[in-house]
Amino acid sequence: MAKIAVLGHGVVGSGVVEVVHDNQQSILSRAGEAIEVKRILDLREFPGLSYSDRFTKDFSEIVGDPEISVVAEVMGGVHPAYEFSMQALRAGKSVVTSNKELVAQKGAELLAVAQENGVKYLFEASVGGGIPIIRPLHQCLAANELTEIVGILNGTTNFILTKMFKEGMEFGEALAEAQRLGYAERDPSADIEGGDACRKICILASLAFGKHVYPDQVETQGITKLTAADVAYAGSWGGVIKLIGRAKKREDGKLTATVGPAFIKSDSQLAGIEDVFNGILVRGNAIGDVVFYGRGAGKLPTASAVVADIIDAVKNPGPSKSLHWEDAAENQVADWREDQAAYYICLRAADNERARAAASGLFGEIQALSRDDKPDDEFAFVTVPLPESKILDGAARLAEQGMPALSMIRVLDC
Amino acid sequence: MAKIAVLGHGVVGSGVVEVVHDNQQSILSRAGEAIEVKRILDLREFPGLSYSDRFTKDFSEIVGDPEISVVAEVMGGVHPAYEFSMQALRAGKSVVTSNKELVAQKGAELLAVAQENGVKYLFEASVGGGIPIIRPLHQCLAANELTEIVGILNGTTNFILTKMFKEGMEFGEALAEAQRLGYAERDPSADIEGGDACRKICILASLAFGKHVYPDQVETQGITKLTAADVAYAGSWGGVIKLIGRAKKREDGKLTATVGPAFIKSDSQLAGIEDVFNGILVRGNAIGDVVFYGRGAGKLPTASAVVADIIDAVKNPGPSKSLHWEDAAENQVADWREDQAAYYICLRAADNERARAAASGLFGEIQALSRDDKPDDEFAFVTVPLPESKILDGAARLAEQGMPALSMIRVLDC
Repeated sequence: MAKIAVLGHGVVGSGVVEVVHDNQQSILSRAGEAIEVKRILDLREFPGLSYSDRFTKDFSEIVGDPEISVVAEVMGGVHPAYEFSMQALRAGKSVVTSNKELVAQKGAELLAVAQENGVKYLFEASVGGGIPIIRPLHQCLAANELTEIVGILNGTTNFILTKMFKEGMEFGEALAEAQRLGYAERDPSADIEGGDACRKICILASLAFGKHVYPDQVETQGITKLTAADVAYAGSWGGVIKLIGRAKKREDGKLTATVGPAFIKSDSQLAGIEDVFNGILVRGNAIGDVVFYGRGAGKLPTASAVVADIIDAVKNPGPSKSLHWEDAAENQVADWREDQAAYYICLRAADNERARAAASGLFGEIQALSRDDKPDDEFAFVTVPLPESKILDGAARLAEQGMPALSMIRVLDC
Repeated sequence: MAKIAVLGHGVVGSGVVEVVHDNQQSILSRAGEAIEVKRILDLREFPGLSYSDRFTKDFSEIVGDPEISVVAEVMGGVHPAYEFSMQALRAGKSVVTSNKELVAQKGAELLAVAQENGVKYLFEASVGGGIPIIRPLHQCLAANELTEIVGILNGTTNFILTKMFKEGMEFGEALAEAQRLGYAERDPSADIEGGDACRKICILASLAFGKHVYPDQVETQGITKLTAADVAYAGSWGGVIKLIGRAKKREDGKLTATVGPAFIKSDSQLAGIEDVFNGILVRGNAIGDVVFYGRGAGKLPTASAVVADIIDAVKNPGPSKSLHWEDAAENQVADWREDQAAYYICLRAADNERARAAASGLFGEIQALSRDDKPDDEFAFVTVPLPESKILDGAARLAEQGMPALSMIRVLDC
């Protein structure tokens, strides 16, 4: 009988307790022994549960308990989750987590401390909820040189974008709907400003390319400025708008990493991923494209990923041989402006023909777009792939000429 | 330096040699040591290769070589692959394979012999080519009680069905196109009769549900009888036809397993999987639906999955703790006729109104379908979900009344 502790009895934590309880038979057969939640750390009171007697407010009762071999940290946030995780690892307990913020900030350090102490630090649940992605990345795709990871990593924004696309809603209206349905929190900024997707692409990029990529190295835009007009232009172009997290290894070995809305064609592999689903496309030199798809969040999918990690830690108590990355190297992340990308640009321009001529002069061949009820003083187009710095310079020039960009969105091939 | 042998220098075998050679750096960093192909078994001659000196026609040179720790069996077919694999395992070498026929026939036995000899028998490449599915199934989804696996498991037939759907081709025409492009072999029967998909669903079902499911326990239909008319009716119903392999655990613990063409709605998760791609949907009680998607075949995707298994066997030389299943239990597979399914049925019926009345009398509520240029003596409809035995009985009754079924195809929700 393996004994574990759960730090935090929120949505995920209570889900972990529930999954461990409901799937005892399958867990026993796969872990080789039964698993019991011995302790739950939470500052709140939870009277009236069948397991109310297992709560504690004192972390030392967990870290000092030699019977507890695995700690599931599902509190979220960097502090005190970081301190608790470090103490547990140093006490020889494996730690499993769904805490993407902590892994994105401190992953390299926590992985190293786990290694030094002969235990595991696992975080399958930190990306893609219940979709297995971390383990396939470091194990099943081991024979590939990975070149690119592109994903729809945040379910809340994908729900909002689906509503905007399918029902023509404006952003605010779709956000309100997401909040009404419980898909967006009352303070939705981590989702809609792109921060959540940014943490996830950091974790995936660190693992895929072997060196820690920090959130402040990722150029991050949210979806708050998107308009129904942008969505309509995307439709007339033959595509949709998705919030895409992307990390790419360049020929020179450097990475670029961005999070932001993107035009993608309707027949691309990620275009059909709707509502709160997530999809992650992994490109390798031998494997080609593989897409992982499923519910990216939610109590039970996330909890089931945490419990799969608990089972792994119970069954294989030693350190992981392949789940690791090094600390960041200097200059490993290149300036995203050096990347090539096509762009959709929507200008305020009273004279459409003058705008077309100016844009063609700056960007070469462009494809003008239309939409229903297009105002006369609006001119939207898509460029060919160009260095992003050239796109930005061009837009600045157009603004100087009295044709400011209302929207600028990358066009991606994925 | 780990030394391995490759049995068979066909498409996959030569791909394995190529991937091991081209990805040395990434393999070294992930396996912890370099990997070298020391021996290649093939009865043919391969002069003029940079590694021509490594070929042998004598398996005893491999099984008797204590330096060789891992054998990649990529010959295909049950014999002599079975005998070679058994000898290698008994000699204390891990065996990795892409051989779905062998795993589907002898998996339980080979897994047991690997266990007894303290080594691994791995077969990630046997299903879904380069898509990681075997390892996620037994590891990442460990915390779930799996209830169902539904997949598009054969790229050749999916290419043919995509051509029939998108270009209105008849089956023979689409098959010829697939052969012209090298997607179908000159003898395509294993693909188009459903045998290949049958082996793959056997492997997935055995792993997911813990007991060996044999090919002859799976009700298997191919796509050779599909017509452009069936495809047109599927379109007018709002869906597509896919060749679906499916295994389901019933409430009473028994399984049902089938392979056959199926109507699925256009907005379902597998409908958008086109051309030679594969997609596998896994349903668990906690995780909900997860779909794995990618290139299901091809030299490099398959070879990369074989090499990932080689890396695993080199890095973790002991027996696997979670990759196993037991031999078949008596009565574990229920009669598929006991299953519930809706059906599409197309009748030869001069009097459409009589056919509608007769069908409604037998099946309850039906939805009549139409298509362009429908002949007057054809009546097609979709039933509600009913026990399959009742569908079969009803069709027999209609035939007795002079209205034989031209086509009968399951309607699935996936």
